[in-house]
Amino acid sequence: MPLVKRLTVIGVGLIGGSLARALREQGAVGEVVGVGRGEANLKRGVELGVLDRYCTDPVEGVQGADMVFLSTPVCSIPGLVERIAPHLAKGCIVTDGGSVKGTIVSACEPLMPEGTFFIGGHPIAGTEHSGVEASFATLYQGKRCIITPTERSDADALAKVVAVWEAAGSSVTVMDPVRHDRVVAAISHLPHMVAYSLVNAVEGYEKTAGDLLCFSAGGFRDFTRIASSDPAMWRDIALTNRDAVLEMMDFFATTLAELRKLVDAGDGAGLEKFFLNSKLARDAIL
Amino acid sequence: MPLVKRLTVIGVGLIGGSLARALREQGAVGEVVGVGRGEANLKRGVELGVLDRYCTDPVEGVQGADMVFLSTPVCSIPGLVERIAPHLAKGCIVTDGGSVKGTIVSACEPLMPEGTFFIGGHPIAGTEHSGVEASFATLYQGKRCIITPTERSDADALAKVVAVWEAAGSSVTVMDPVRHDRVVAAISHLPHMVAYSLVNAVEGYEKTAGDLLCFSAGGFRDFTRIASSDPAMWRDIALTNRDAVLEMMDFFATTLAELRKLVDAGDGAGLEKFFLNSKLARDAIL
Repeated sequence: MPLVKRLTVIGVGLIGGSLARALREQGAVGEVVGVGRGEANLKRGVELGVLDRYCTDPVEGVQGADMVFLSTPVCSIPGLVERIAPHLAKGCIVTDGGSVKGTIVSACEPLMPEGTFFIGGHPIAGTEHSGVEASFATLYQGKRCIITPTERSDADALAKVVAVWEAAGSSVTVMDPVRHDRVVAAISHLPHMVAYSLVNAVEGYEKTAGDLLCFSAGGFRDFTRIASSDPAMWRDIALTNRDAVLEMMDFFATTLAELRKLVDAGDGAGLEKFFLNSKLARDAIL
Repeated sequence: MPLVKRLTVIGVGLIGGSLARALREQGAVGEVVGVGRGEANLKRGVELGVLDRYCTDPVEGVQGADMVFLSTPVCSIPGLVERIAPHLAKGCIVTDGGSVKGTIVSACEPLMPEGTFFIGGHPIAGTEHSGVEASFATLYQGKRCIITPTERSDADALAKVVAVWEAAGSSVTVMDPVRHDRVVAAISHLPHMVAYSLVNAVEGYEKTAGDLLCFSAGGFRDFTRIASSDPAMWRDIALTNRDAVLEMMDFFATTLAELRKLVDAGDGAGLEKFFLNSKLARDAIL
Protein backbone atom coordinates (compact mmCIF):
# COMPACT_ATOMS: atom_id res chain seq x y z
CA MET A 1 0.00 0.00 0.00
CA PRO A 2 1.46 3.40 -0.92
CA LEU A 3 2.38 5.92 1.77
CA VAL A 4 -0.38 8.25 0.53
CA LYS A 5 -3.46 6.70 -1.09
CA ARG A 6 -4.99 9.84 -2.54
CA LEU A 7 -2.97 13.06 -2.65
CA THR A 8 -4.71 16.29 -3.58
CA VAL A 9 -2.34 19.03 -4.74
CA ILE A 10 -3.87 22.50 -4.63
CA GLY A 11 -1.74 24.75 -6.83
CA VAL A 12 -0.06 22.51 -9.40
CA GLY A 13 3.14 24.35 -10.28
CA LEU A 14 6.87 23.73 -9.85
CA ILE A 15 6.58 22.87 -6.13
CA GLY A 16 3.36 20.85 -6.10
CA GLY A 17 4.02 19.17 -9.45
CA SER A 18 7.52 18.12 -8.44
CA LEU A 19 6.28 16.59 -5.17
CA ALA A 20 3.67 14.56 -7.08
CA ARG A 21 6.27 13.41 -9.62
CA ALA A 22 8.76 12.42 -6.91
CA LEU A 23 6.18 10.42 -4.93
CA ARG A 24 4.94 8.69 -8.08
CA GLU A 25 8.46 7.65 -9.02
CA GLN A 26 8.92 6.14 -5.55
CA GLY A 27 5.57 4.35 -5.71
CA ALA A 28 4.67 6.36 -2.61
CA VAL A 29 1.33 7.66 -3.86
CA GLY A 30 -1.79 5.94 -5.24
CA GLU A 31 -3.81 8.66 -6.93
CA VAL A 32 -2.95 12.34 -7.50
CA VAL A 33 -5.74 14.89 -7.87
CA GLY A 34 -4.87 18.41 -9.00
CA VAL A 35 -6.78 21.54 -8.06
CA GLY A 36 -6.19 24.98 -9.50
CA ARG A 37 -7.73 27.91 -11.34
CA GLY A 38 -5.90 27.56 -14.65
CA GLU A 39 -7.48 24.67 -16.52
CA ALA A 40 -4.84 24.64 -19.27
CA ASN A 41 -2.12 24.04 -16.68
CA LEU A 42 -4.13 21.27 -15.01
CA LYS A 43 -4.80 19.55 -18.37
CA ARG A 44 -1.09 19.71 -19.09
CA GLY A 45 -0.50 18.11 -15.66
CA VAL A 46 -2.65 15.13 -16.71
CA GLU A 47 -0.92 14.91 -20.13
CA LEU A 48 2.49 14.91 -18.44
CA GLY A 49 1.36 12.11 -16.09
CA VAL A 50 1.80 14.32 -13.00
CA LEU A 51 -1.94 14.17 -12.20
CA ASP A 52 -4.48 11.39 -12.57
CA ARG A 53 -7.35 13.88 -12.73
CA TYR A 54 -8.14 17.45 -11.81
CA CYS A 55 -10.93 19.82 -10.85
CA THR A 56 -11.14 23.57 -10.30
CA ASP A 57 -13.20 23.42 -7.10
CA PRO A 58 -11.08 22.82 -3.97
CA VAL A 59 -14.02 21.38 -2.03
CA GLU A 60 -14.65 18.77 -4.72
CA GLY A 61 -10.91 18.16 -5.09
CA VAL A 62 -10.26 17.16 -1.48
CA GLN A 63 -13.04 14.52 -1.34
CA GLY A 64 -11.64 11.25 -0.01
CA ALA A 65 -8.03 12.49 0.08
CA ASP A 66 -5.82 11.22 2.90
CA MET A 67 -3.33 14.02 2.24
CA VAL A 68 -3.77 17.54 0.86
CA PHE A 69 -0.73 19.57 -0.19
CA LEU A 70 -1.17 23.32 -0.57
CA SER A 71 1.34 24.99 -2.87
CA THR A 72 -0.42 28.27 -3.52
CA PRO A 73 0.80 31.78 -2.56
CA VAL A 74 1.40 32.16 1.18
CA CYS A 75 -1.45 34.63 1.79
CA SER A 76 -4.03 32.34 0.16
CA ILE A 77 -3.36 29.31 2.38
CA PRO A 78 -5.45 30.13 5.49
CA GLY A 79 -8.48 31.02 3.32
CA LEU A 80 -8.17 27.76 1.39
CA VAL A 81 -7.86 25.70 4.56
CA GLU A 82 -10.96 27.39 5.97
CA ARG A 83 -12.85 26.48 2.80
CA ILE A 84 -11.81 22.81 2.56
CA ALA A 85 -11.70 21.96 6.29
CA PRO A 86 -15.39 20.94 6.70
CA HIS A 87 -15.11 18.61 3.68
CA LEU A 88 -12.02 16.59 4.65
CA ALA A 89 -12.17 12.85 5.19
CA LYS A 90 -11.50 11.57 8.71
CA GLY A 91 -7.74 11.21 9.29
CA CYS A 92 -6.82 13.57 6.44
CA ILE A 93 -3.53 15.44 6.82
CA VAL A 94 -3.23 18.92 5.31
CA THR A 95 0.28 20.27 4.75
CA ASP A 96 1.76 23.11 2.73
CA GLY A 97 4.92 24.37 1.06
CA GLY A 98 4.72 28.04 2.02
CA SER A 99 7.95 29.85 2.80
CA VAL A 100 6.53 31.46 5.97
CA LYS A 101 5.24 29.26 8.75
CA GLY A 102 4.32 31.11 11.97
CA THR A 103 1.31 33.02 10.65
CA ILE A 104 0.16 30.10 8.45
CA VAL A 105 0.37 27.45 11.17
CA SER A 106 -1.32 29.57 13.82
CA ALA A 107 -4.12 30.50 11.39
CA CYS A 108 -4.67 26.97 10.01
CA GLU A 109 -4.30 24.72 13.04
CA PRO A 110 -7.50 25.93 14.81
CA LEU A 111 -9.52 25.51 11.59
CA MET A 112 -9.04 21.72 11.48
CA PRO A 113 -12.05 19.55 12.49
CA GLU A 114 -11.52 16.78 15.06
CA GLY A 115 -9.61 13.87 13.54
CA THR A 116 -7.96 15.89 10.75
CA PHE A 117 -4.53 17.48 11.00
CA PHE A 118 -2.54 20.49 9.80
CA ILE A 119 1.27 20.18 9.71
CA GLY A 120 3.23 23.05 8.14
CA GLY A 121 6.18 22.42 5.85
CA HIS A 122 8.69 24.28 3.70
CA PRO A 123 10.84 22.55 1.09
CA ILE A 124 13.94 24.69 0.49
CA ALA A 125 14.20 24.08 -3.23
CA GLY A 126 13.16 25.78 -6.42
CA THR A 127 14.24 27.08 -9.77
CA GLU A 128 13.49 30.33 -11.56
CA HIS A 129 10.80 28.57 -13.62
CA SER A 130 7.16 28.03 -12.74
CA GLY A 131 4.10 26.00 -13.78
CA VAL A 132 3.62 22.25 -13.94
CA GLU A 133 5.69 22.16 -17.12
CA ALA A 134 8.75 23.16 -15.05
CA SER A 135 8.24 20.43 -12.43
CA PHE A 136 10.56 17.42 -12.20
CA ALA A 137 10.88 14.40 -9.95
CA THR A 138 14.35 15.17 -8.58
CA LEU A 139 13.75 18.78 -7.48
CA TYR A 140 13.90 17.81 -3.79
CA GLN A 141 16.72 15.29 -4.05
CA GLY A 142 19.30 16.12 -1.38
CA LYS A 143 17.58 19.43 -0.55
CA ARG A 144 16.52 20.55 2.92
CA CYS A 145 12.88 20.47 3.94
CA ILE A 146 11.73 22.03 7.22
CA ILE A 147 8.61 20.63 8.91
CA THR A 148 7.08 22.82 11.61
CA PRO A 149 4.79 21.02 14.07
CA THR A 150 3.50 22.67 17.23
CA GLU A 151 2.94 21.15 20.66
CA ARG A 152 -0.62 20.46 19.57
CA SER A 153 0.46 18.43 16.52
CA ASP A 154 -0.46 14.75 16.20
CA ALA A 155 2.68 12.56 16.30
CA ASP A 156 1.48 10.15 13.60
CA ALA A 157 0.49 12.96 11.26
CA LEU A 158 3.91 14.56 11.75
CA ALA A 159 5.66 11.24 11.07
CA LYS A 160 3.65 10.83 7.88
CA VAL A 161 4.56 14.30 6.53
CA VAL A 162 8.23 13.66 7.35
CA ALA A 163 8.04 10.29 5.56
CA VAL A 164 6.50 11.91 2.47
CA TRP A 165 9.32 14.46 2.15
CA GLU A 166 11.95 11.82 2.78
CA ALA A 167 10.35 9.70 0.05
CA ALA A 168 10.70 12.75 -2.24
CA GLY A 169 14.43 12.75 -1.49
CA SER A 170 14.61 15.63 1.00
CA SER A 171 16.72 15.87 4.12
CA VAL A 172 14.07 16.77 6.71
CA THR A 173 14.58 19.01 9.75
CA VAL A 174 11.83 19.49 12.32
CA MET A 175 11.67 22.86 14.11
CA ASP A 176 9.01 25.10 15.58
CA PRO A 177 7.38 27.65 13.26
CA VAL A 178 8.85 30.71 14.96
CA ARG A 179 12.41 29.42 14.66
CA HIS A 180 11.74 28.47 11.02
CA ASP A 181 10.65 32.02 10.27
CA ARG A 182 13.83 33.42 11.79
CA VAL A 183 16.01 31.00 9.85
CA VAL A 184 14.44 31.89 6.50
CA ALA A 185 14.33 35.59 7.41
CA ALA A 186 18.11 35.42 7.82
CA ILE A 187 19.12 33.29 4.84
CA SER A 188 16.44 34.21 2.32
CA HIS A 189 14.10 37.08 3.22
CA LEU A 190 16.82 39.50 4.37
CA PRO A 191 18.96 38.92 1.23
CA HIS A 192 15.90 39.69 -0.89
CA MET A 193 15.12 42.90 1.05
CA VAL A 194 18.78 43.92 0.66
CA ALA A 195 18.93 43.13 -3.05
CA TYR A 196 15.70 45.00 -3.82
CA SER A 197 16.95 47.99 -1.78
CA LEU A 198 20.34 47.96 -3.47
CA VAL A 199 18.91 48.08 -6.97
CA ASN A 200 16.44 50.81 -5.97
CA ALA A 201 19.22 52.83 -4.33
CA VAL A 202 21.47 52.64 -7.39
CA GLU A 203 18.55 53.35 -9.71
CA GLY A 204 17.50 56.31 -7.54
CA TYR A 205 21.07 57.63 -7.47
CA GLU A 206 21.25 57.28 -11.25
CA LYS A 207 18.38 59.74 -11.57
CA THR A 208 20.50 62.45 -9.94
CA ALA A 209 23.93 61.35 -11.16
CA GLY A 210 23.36 60.16 -14.73
CA ASP A 211 24.18 56.82 -16.37
CA LEU A 212 25.54 54.26 -13.92
CA LEU A 213 23.93 50.91 -14.59
CA CYS A 214 25.29 50.69 -18.14
CA PHE A 215 28.75 50.30 -16.56
CA SER A 216 27.72 47.40 -14.37
CA ALA A 217 29.70 44.24 -14.94
CA GLY A 218 28.77 40.62 -14.27
CA GLY A 219 29.28 41.06 -10.52
CA PHE A 220 26.41 43.52 -10.15
CA ARG A 221 24.14 41.42 -12.33
CA ASP A 222 24.86 38.25 -10.35
CA PHE A 223 24.58 39.97 -7.00
CA THR A 224 21.21 41.47 -7.83
CA ARG A 225 19.65 38.47 -9.59
CA ILE A 226 17.21 37.89 -6.72
CA ALA A 227 15.93 41.47 -7.14
CA SER A 228 14.22 40.16 -10.27
CA SER A 229 12.00 37.86 -8.18
CA ASP A 230 8.20 38.07 -8.29
CA PRO A 231 7.07 41.29 -6.48
CA ALA A 232 3.68 39.85 -5.42
CA MET A 233 5.27 36.80 -3.82
CA TRP A 234 7.74 38.93 -1.89
CA ARG A 235 5.03 41.35 -0.84
CA ASP A 236 3.21 38.36 0.73
CA ILE A 237 6.37 37.14 2.46
CA ALA A 238 7.14 40.60 3.88
CA LEU A 239 3.54 40.86 5.13
CA THR A 240 3.37 37.40 6.69
CA ASN A 241 6.87 37.19 8.17
CA ARG A 242 6.92 40.82 9.26
CA ASP A 243 8.46 40.47 12.74
CA ALA A 244 11.34 38.19 11.78
CA VAL A 245 12.07 40.25 8.65
CA LEU A 246 12.17 43.47 10.71
CA GLU A 247 14.41 41.83 13.29
CA MET A 248 16.89 40.72 10.61
CA MET A 249 16.75 44.06 8.78
CA ASP A 250 17.65 45.80 12.04
CA PHE A 251 20.48 43.37 12.69
CA PHE A 252 21.78 43.98 9.19
CA ALA A 253 21.45 47.77 9.47
CA THR A 254 23.51 47.69 12.68
CA THR A 255 26.25 45.64 10.98
CA LEU A 256 26.25 47.97 7.97
CA ALA A 257 26.56 50.96 10.33
CA GLU A 258 29.62 49.32 11.94
CA LEU A 259 31.22 49.01 8.51
CA ARG A 260 30.33 52.61 7.71
CA LYS A 261 32.17 53.68 10.86
CA LEU A 262 35.31 51.76 9.78
CA VAL A 263 35.20 53.31 6.29
CA ASP A 264 34.65 56.78 7.73
CA ALA A 265 37.57 56.38 10.15
CA GLY A 266 39.86 55.00 7.41
CA ASP A 267 40.54 52.08 9.77
CA GLY A 268 42.52 49.76 7.47
CA ALA A 269 43.08 47.00 10.02
CA GLY A 270 39.43 47.08 11.10
CA LEU A 271 38.22 46.97 7.49
CA GLU A 272 40.42 44.02 6.61
CA LYS A 273 39.22 42.14 9.70
CA PHE A 274 35.57 42.85 8.85
CA PHE A 275 36.01 41.65 5.25
CA LEU A 276 38.05 38.60 6.27
CA ASN A 277 35.47 37.51 8.84
CA SER A 278 32.82 37.63 6.13
CA LYS A 279 35.00 35.80 3.61
CA LEU A 280 35.74 33.00 6.08
CA ALA A 281 32.06 32.61 7.03
CA ARG A 282 31.01 32.47 3.40
CA ASP A 283 33.79 30.14 2.26
CA ALA A 284 32.74 27.77 5.07
CA ILE A 285 29.27 27.23 3.55
CA LEU A 286 30.52 26.42 0.04
CA MET B 1 55.09 50.55 -36.44
CA PRO B 2 53.13 49.19 -33.47
CA LEU B 3 50.97 51.49 -31.36
CA VAL B 4 53.31 50.93 -28.39
CA LYS B 5 56.97 50.19 -29.08
CA ARG B 6 58.00 49.09 -25.60
CA LEU B 7 55.33 48.39 -22.97
CA THR B 8 56.40 47.86 -19.38
CA VAL B 9 53.80 46.07 -17.26
CA ILE B 10 54.34 46.47 -13.52
CA GLY B 11 52.35 43.75 -11.76
CA VAL B 12 51.96 40.91 -14.25
CA GLY B 13 48.71 39.20 -13.21
CA LEU B 14 45.30 38.69 -14.75
CA ILE B 15 44.84 42.38 -15.66
CA GLY B 16 48.36 43.28 -16.83
CA GLY B 17 48.97 39.91 -18.48
CA SER B 18 45.70 40.02 -20.39
CA LEU B 19 46.43 43.53 -21.70
CA ALA B 20 49.85 42.40 -22.95
CA ARG B 21 48.35 39.32 -24.62
CA ALA B 22 45.57 41.33 -26.28
CA LEU B 23 47.98 43.94 -27.67
CA ARG B 24 50.35 41.25 -28.93
CA GLU B 25 47.54 39.49 -30.77
CA GLN B 26 46.64 42.77 -32.47
CA GLY B 27 50.25 43.50 -33.39
CA ALA B 28 49.81 46.67 -31.33
CA VAL B 29 52.95 46.27 -29.21
CA GLY B 30 56.64 45.78 -30.05
CA GLU B 31 58.27 44.57 -26.86
CA VAL B 32 56.69 43.70 -23.48
CA VAL B 33 58.79 43.98 -20.31
CA GLY B 34 57.38 42.59 -17.06
CA VAL B 35 58.17 43.92 -13.58
CA GLY B 36 57.13 42.29 -10.34
CA ARG B 37 58.29 40.83 -7.06
CA GLY B 38 57.48 37.17 -7.71
CA GLU B 39 60.14 35.83 -10.05
CA ALA B 40 58.35 32.48 -10.61
CA ASN B 41 55.30 34.34 -11.95
CA LEU B 42 57.47 36.52 -14.21
CA LYS B 43 59.35 33.49 -15.57
CA ARG B 44 56.03 31.86 -16.31
CA GLY B 45 55.02 35.05 -18.14
CA VAL B 46 58.01 34.65 -20.45
CA GLU B 47 57.31 30.93 -20.97
CA LEU B 48 53.69 31.71 -21.86
CA GLY B 49 54.85 34.33 -24.38
CA VAL B 50 53.12 37.13 -22.48
CA LEU B 51 56.48 38.86 -21.75
CA ASP B 52 59.64 39.21 -23.82
CA ARG B 53 61.72 39.72 -20.69
CA TYR B 54 61.38 40.73 -17.08
CA CYS B 55 63.16 42.30 -14.13
CA THR B 56 62.29 42.80 -10.48
CA ASP B 57 63.45 46.43 -10.25
CA PRO B 58 60.83 48.92 -11.46
CA VAL B 59 63.46 51.58 -12.22
CA GLU B 60 65.36 49.20 -14.49
CA GLY B 61 62.09 47.91 -15.98
CA VAL B 62 60.84 51.26 -17.26
CA GLN B 63 64.05 52.15 -19.14
CA GLY B 64 63.21 53.18 -22.69
CA ALA B 65 59.51 52.32 -22.40
CA ASP B 66 57.06 54.52 -24.28
CA MET B 67 54.20 53.18 -22.15
CA VAL B 68 54.11 51.88 -18.57
CA PHE B 69 51.01 50.05 -17.31
CA LEU B 70 50.60 49.70 -13.55
CA SER B 71 48.39 46.80 -12.46
CA THR B 72 49.42 46.55 -8.82
CA PRO B 73 47.17 47.08 -5.76
CA VAL B 74 45.58 50.53 -5.69
CA CYS B 75 47.47 51.77 -2.62
CA SER B 76 50.86 50.91 -4.14
CA ILE B 77 50.41 52.96 -7.32
CA PRO B 78 51.40 56.47 -6.14
CA GLY B 79 54.57 55.13 -4.47
CA LEU B 80 55.56 53.25 -7.61
CA VAL B 81 54.99 56.29 -9.80
CA GLU B 82 57.12 58.40 -7.46
CA ARG B 83 59.91 55.84 -7.77
CA ILE B 84 59.90 55.44 -11.56
CA ALA B 85 59.06 59.03 -12.54
CA PRO B 86 62.66 60.39 -12.66
CA HIS B 87 63.73 57.46 -14.87
CA LEU B 88 61.12 57.67 -17.62
CA ALA B 89 62.03 58.31 -21.24
CA LYS B 90 60.85 61.58 -22.77
CA GLY B 91 57.27 61.19 -24.03
CA CYS B 92 56.54 58.16 -21.90
CA ILE B 93 52.91 57.65 -20.90
CA VAL B 94 52.15 56.02 -17.54
CA THR B 95 48.68 54.57 -17.06
CA ASP B 96 47.08 52.16 -14.61
CA GLY B 97 44.24 49.73 -14.10
CA GLY B 98 43.28 50.62 -10.52
CA SER B 99 39.61 50.49 -9.60
CA VAL B 100 39.75 53.87 -7.83
CA LYS B 101 40.79 56.97 -9.75
CA GLY B 102 40.39 60.24 -7.82
CA THR B 103 43.07 59.66 -5.20
CA ILE B 104 45.40 57.92 -7.67
CA VAL B 105 45.20 60.58 -10.38
CA SER B 106 45.60 63.51 -8.01
CA ALA B 107 48.60 61.83 -6.33
CA CYS B 108 50.33 60.72 -9.56
CA GLU B 109 49.77 63.63 -11.94
CA PRO B 110 52.01 66.11 -10.05
CA LEU B 111 54.82 63.52 -9.85
CA MET B 112 55.35 63.41 -13.61
CA PRO B 113 58.43 65.18 -15.03
CA GLU B 114 57.99 67.62 -17.94
CA GLY B 115 57.30 65.72 -21.18
CA THR B 116 55.97 62.57 -19.52
CA PHE B 117 52.29 61.89 -18.83
CA PHE B 118 50.01 60.17 -16.37
CA ILE B 119 46.54 59.12 -17.57
CA GLY B 120 44.38 57.04 -15.24
CA GLY B 121 42.34 54.10 -16.47
CA HIS B 122 40.08 51.34 -15.23
CA PRO B 123 39.15 48.31 -17.31
CA ILE B 124 35.86 46.89 -15.99
CA ALA B 125 36.70 43.24 -16.48
CA GLY B 126 38.05 40.39 -14.45
CA THR B 127 37.54 36.84 -13.33
CA GLU B 128 37.87 35.21 -9.92
CA HIS B 129 41.34 33.93 -10.87
CA SER B 130 44.66 35.72 -10.54
CA GLY B 131 48.26 35.53 -11.69
CA VAL B 132 49.72 35.61 -15.22
CA GLU B 133 48.59 32.00 -15.68
CA ALA B 134 44.96 33.20 -15.54
CA SER B 135 45.45 35.94 -18.17
CA PHE B 136 43.97 35.65 -21.65
CA ALA B 137 43.85 37.82 -24.77
CA THR B 138 40.07 38.24 -24.93
CA LEU B 139 39.46 39.38 -21.33
CA TYR B 140 38.66 42.93 -22.46
CA GLN B 141 36.70 42.02 -25.58
CA GLY B 142 33.41 43.94 -25.51
CA LYS B 143 34.02 45.10 -21.94
CA ARG B 144 33.87 48.70 -20.72
CA CYS B 145 37.05 50.61 -19.94
CA ILE B 146 36.90 54.03 -18.27
CA ILE B 147 39.75 56.50 -18.93
CA THR B 148 39.96 59.44 -16.54
CA PRO B 149 41.93 62.43 -17.81
CA THR B 150 41.94 65.79 -16.01
CA GLU B 151 41.97 69.28 -17.46
CA ARG B 152 45.76 69.15 -17.25
CA SER B 153 46.01 65.96 -19.36
CA ASP B 154 47.87 65.98 -22.69
CA ALA B 155 45.44 65.34 -25.56
CA ASP B 156 47.84 63.10 -27.51
CA ALA B 157 48.67 61.00 -24.44
CA LEU B 158 44.94 60.59 -23.75
CA ALA B 159 44.28 59.56 -27.36
CA LYS B 160 47.07 56.99 -27.16
CA VAL B 161 45.71 55.37 -23.98
CA VAL B 162 42.22 55.25 -25.52
CA ALA B 163 43.67 53.65 -28.67
CA VAL B 164 45.49 51.01 -26.60
CA TRP B 165 42.30 49.93 -24.80
CA GLU B 166 40.33 49.94 -28.04
CA ALA B 167 43.02 47.75 -29.58
CA ALA B 168 42.52 45.38 -26.64
CA GLY B 169 38.83 45.15 -27.57
CA SER B 170 37.35 47.46 -24.92
CA SER B 171 34.53 49.92 -25.34
CA VAL B 172 36.16 53.09 -23.93
CA THR B 173 34.36 55.85 -22.01
CA VAL B 174 36.17 59.02 -20.94
CA MET B 175 35.03 60.70 -17.71
CA ASP B 176 36.58 62.74 -14.93
CA PRO B 177 38.07 60.82 -11.99
CA VAL B 178 35.51 62.01 -9.43
CA ARG B 179 32.58 60.88 -11.55
CA HIS B 180 34.35 57.55 -12.17
CA ASP B 181 34.69 56.98 -8.45
CA ARG B 182 30.98 57.61 -7.92
CA VAL B 183 30.03 55.27 -10.75
CA VAL B 184 32.12 52.39 -9.38
CA ALA B 185 31.06 53.16 -5.81
CA ALA B 186 27.47 52.62 -6.93
CA ILE B 187 27.81 49.57 -9.14
CA SER B 188 30.72 47.76 -7.50
CA HIS B 189 31.95 49.13 -4.16
CA LEU B 190 28.52 49.47 -2.55
CA PRO B 191 27.47 45.92 -3.54
CA HIS B 192 30.66 44.61 -1.96
CA MET B 193 30.10 46.56 1.28
CA VAL B 194 26.52 45.26 1.36
CA ALA B 195 27.51 41.64 0.68
CA TYR B 196 30.25 41.66 3.32
CA SER B 197 27.82 43.21 5.84
CA LEU B 198 25.07 40.73 5.00
CA VAL B 199 27.28 37.70 5.60
CA ASN B 200 28.64 39.20 8.82
CA ALA B 201 25.12 40.01 10.04
CA VAL B 202 23.83 36.49 9.38
CA GLU B 203 26.96 34.96 10.87
CA GLY B 204 26.66 37.21 13.93
CA TYR B 205 22.98 36.35 14.30
CA GLU B 206 23.84 32.66 14.03
CA LYS B 207 25.98 33.02 17.15
CA THR B 208 22.90 33.96 19.17
CA ALA B 209 20.27 31.95 17.28
CA GLY B 210 22.00 28.68 16.40
CA ASP B 211 22.48 27.00 13.03
CA LEU B 212 21.25 29.09 10.12
CA LEU B 213 23.76 28.95 7.32
CA CYS B 214 23.42 25.17 6.90
CA PHE B 215 19.89 25.84 5.59
CA SER B 216 21.06 28.32 2.98
CA ALA B 217 20.18 27.36 -0.57
CA GLY B 218 21.76 28.38 -3.86
CA GLY B 219 20.25 31.87 -3.69
CA PHE B 220 22.21 32.88 -0.60
CA ARG B 221 25.42 31.41 -1.99
CA ASP B 222 25.04 33.24 -5.31
CA PHE B 223 24.02 36.50 -3.67
CA THR B 224 27.01 36.50 -1.36
CA ARG B 225 29.65 35.29 -3.82
CA ILE B 226 31.35 38.70 -3.85
CA ALA B 227 31.77 38.49 -0.05
CA SER B 228 34.49 35.94 -0.77
CA SER B 229 36.61 38.61 -2.50
CA ASP B 230 40.12 39.46 -1.35
CA PRO B 231 39.92 41.39 1.98
CA ALA B 232 43.19 43.31 1.41
CA MET B 233 42.06 44.56 -1.99
CA TRP B 234 38.73 45.73 -0.62
CA ARG B 235 40.39 47.37 2.38
CA ASP B 236 42.42 49.42 -0.11
CA ILE B 237 39.36 50.34 -2.14
CA ALA B 238 37.42 51.41 0.96
CA LEU B 239 40.40 53.52 2.07
CA THR B 240 41.03 55.20 -1.28
CA ASN B 241 37.44 55.75 -2.41
CA ARG B 242 36.20 56.68 1.04
CA ASP B 243 33.99 59.67 0.21
CA ALA B 244 32.11 58.08 -2.69
CA VAL B 245 31.70 54.81 -0.78
CA LEU B 246 30.28 56.65 2.25
CA GLU B 247 27.94 58.66 0.01
CA MET B 248 26.57 55.48 -1.59
CA MET B 249 26.33 53.62 1.73
CA ASP B 250 24.22 56.48 3.09
CA PHE B 251 22.05 56.49 0.00
CA PHE B 252 21.54 52.75 0.37
CA ALA B 253 20.82 52.97 4.11
CA THR B 254 18.12 55.55 3.40
CA THR B 255 16.50 53.29 0.80
CA LEU B 256 16.67 50.30 3.16
CA ALA B 257 15.04 52.40 5.88
CA GLU B 258 12.19 53.25 3.48
CA LEU B 259 11.64 49.55 2.87
CA ARG B 260 11.75 48.88 6.61
CA LYS B 261 8.97 51.41 7.07
CA LEU B 262 6.80 49.65 4.47
CA VAL B 263 7.39 46.24 6.11
CA ASP B 264 6.67 47.66 9.55
CA ALA B 265 3.43 49.29 8.35
CA GLY B 266 2.35 46.12 6.54
CA ASP B 267 1.84 48.30 3.46
CA GLY B 268 1.16 45.66 0.78
CA ALA B 269 0.69 48.08 -2.11
CA GLY B 270 3.82 50.03 -1.14
CA LEU B 271 5.88 46.85 -0.82
CA GLU B 272 4.78 45.54 -4.21
CA LYS B 273 5.58 48.90 -5.82
CA PHE B 274 9.04 48.97 -4.19
CA PHE B 275 9.84 45.42 -5.35
CA LEU B 276 8.43 45.99 -8.84
CA ASN B 277 10.48 49.16 -9.31
CA SER B 278 13.62 47.19 -8.45
CA LYS B 279 12.69 44.28 -10.68
CA LEU B 280 12.07 46.56 -13.65
CA ALA B 281 15.38 48.43 -13.13
CA ARG B 282 17.30 45.17 -12.88
CA ASP B 283 15.57 43.45 -15.79
CA ALA B 284 16.45 46.49 -17.92
CA ILE B 285 20.21 45.92 -17.53
CA LEU B 286 20.11 42.24 -18.52
